[in-house]
Amino acid sequence: MSRKIVVIGGGTGTYVALTGLREFDTQLSAVVTMMDSGGSTGRLRDQLGVLPPGDIRQALVALSESDEVWRKLFTYRFDNGDLGGHNFGNLFLSALEKMTGDFAEALKLASELLQIKGEVLPVTYAASDLCVELEDGKIIEGETHIDELAIDKKRSKIKRAYLSPKAPINKDVRKAICEADLVLIGPGDLYTSLLVNLLVDGVVDELSSTKAKVVYVLNLMTKYGQTTGYTAKNHVADLEQYLGKGVLDYILINSKSPKDETIKLYEKQQEIPVKDDLTQNGYKLVRSDMLADEKIDKPRADKLKRSLIRHDPDKLAKTVMSLLD
Amino acid sequence: MSRKIVVIGGGTGTYVALTGLREFDTQLSAVVTMMDSGGSTGRLRDQLGVLPPGDIRQALVALSESDEVWRKLFTYRFDNGDLGGHNFGNLFLSALEKMTGDFAEALKLASELLQIKGEVLPVTYAASDLCVELEDGKIIEGETHIDELAIDKKRSKIKRAYLSPKAPINKDVRKAICEADLVLIGPGDLYTSLLVNLLVDGVVDELSSTKAKVVYVLNLMTKYGQTTGYTAKNHVADLEQYLGKGVLDYILINSKSPKDETIKLYEKQQEIPVKDDLTQNGYKLVRSDMLADEKIDKPRADKLKRSLIRHDPDKLAKTVMSLLD
Repeated sequence: MSRKIVVIGGGTGTYVALTGLREFDTQLSAVVTMMDSGGSTGRLRDQLGVLPPGDIRQALVALSESDEVWRKLFTYRFDNGDLGGHNFGNLFLSALEKMTGDFAEALKLASELLQIKGEVLPVTYAASDLCVELEDGKIIEGETHIDELAIDKKRSKIKRAYLSPKAPINKDVRKAICEADLVLIGPGDLYTSLLVNLLVDGVVDELSSTKAKVVYVLNLMTKYGQTTGYTAKNHVADLEQYLGKGVLDYILINSKSPKDETIKLYEKQQEIPVKDDLTQNGYKLVRSDMLADEKIDKPRADKLKRSLIRHDPDKLAKTVMSLLD
Repeated sequence: MSRKIVVIGGGTGTYVALTGLREFDTQLSAVVTMMDSGGSTGRLRDQLGVLPPGDIRQALVALSESDEVWRKLFTYRFDNGDLGGHNFGNLFLSALEKMTGDFAEALKLASELLQIKGEVLPVTYAASDLCVELEDGKIIEGETHIDELAIDKKRSKIKRAYLSPKAPINKDVRKAICEADLVLIGPGDLYTSLLVNLLVDGVVDELSSTKAKVVYVLNLMTKYGQTTGYTAKNHVADLEQYLGKGVLDYILINSKSPKDETIKLYEKQQEIPVKDDLTQNGYKLVRSDMLADEKIDKPRADKLKRSLIRHDPDKLAKTVMSLLD
């Protein structure tokens, strides 16, 4: 029987999860953040006043069953000129939104063109930004600055995160979570891909009341500026600060260590493997090898660092599906 | 019986002709110039090294049978920011060309998406520019400069036009002209939309040898800098300078005068109705009302002046089809 699975996140982690899960007998809903403010997406938000297309676009491509050329076109990035750094899929969604005046309509048309298996749902249709207050009292506004400013200097830990302005849940997200057999939170950067979704009004309520199994996939590596030096416990503590206790049913933890040489590359950026110090605590722990073969990414036009140490789509999906047996 | 018709040109005139002819039982081939060097198209050529998409895009939209939203998307123009002035259809074709490394493949994919009735054929796949030598010996290189420089000052008449570098005919264009029942040259700016196609090596040869009826639609108004002060005879003389005598079978001439108030708008830009001073001379003359209702265009982001006095698609097409009875 086909199982209803909701994946909450945005970016590469969600792409990996969707890519794995689509190979199983599943009905997938991708719930993605709408608070990206950097790169091509940030320029489109600022200059055209559109909603951020970047995370939506990645999820669309992950779920696309159309010819490879359309999937490739959606991820194509212009190298130079006026368009340098802009991603074609972003331009596509933004042009449709400007033309129709409606992001939902733009998403529907893009979903048709890409022949989506399942659905891609913006967590909200409101324009909003992720903000964090640091332990030293400093406020950082906008997702891109949370990562950018982290690179520049040592800074204090994130104390709390909030959206400005507040954003209401997309009603289709409410329905998807309510009807799901399983909700997967992650993988993804804890603040900018995961918590950013939970901060949308109504999401935590729905996760608390759904009969679905709520599953958190722990990240493989810490993220500098967001989870510097964090152990597994620290990750879960921050998550439960917003989600509340007793909502998570399972936590998935990778059990295979990345190669020493890859770890060394990350250490230069003050990122280390997340130490597994968890014990059962209301949720069940599932430990298994979910590590992908480590590959060096080609440099990209947008200069964003992409992860070398990633979850393997198939191993991750198998572990998730085993919870539904 | 479905009739094979080739329309040679580019820009608005070709759009009008195709829009009219597609309503009849026709197999249409649009042969369009690849020498545009201005506006959005010029920026893409310069910055990305792609072939000029603008004229192709207009012909694709004219022949599209897909949902209106895709046709509208292809003509959507961004207002501001990095993308200001860029046309989405141009970005689409350029992204596909960059991605596949092949303009023909890009055109094929766009034709599928837009569900083209008939075919859109670049007159050549070579990168080339239209150049003109004026009677005072001055050389102007690049289509956009021919129009731009004309606005700035009074200048002498065009003596001859050529392509730099030379460009070979697209073999599919050769086939289309060879197999056609009728070839329609125009409507369109005499140098930048019509002659620019005839200058491609092989096009005149094919027009001379085809059994198709070769038909020239005379423009309604003179074009400043290209045909300033030209009568109908002057137009045909310039055309036959490249086409040779005896190739044209018919010349279509509009017989209805535009409104005085619209003519006055054109006079400010030193453009006047083309005076009909033609007599039969190897070709047959067909005079009929082919004038569209006169509408004022909304201003566009690209600031290019668009024609107010145009051929009516249906009247033009009926006149063309009557030649095949």
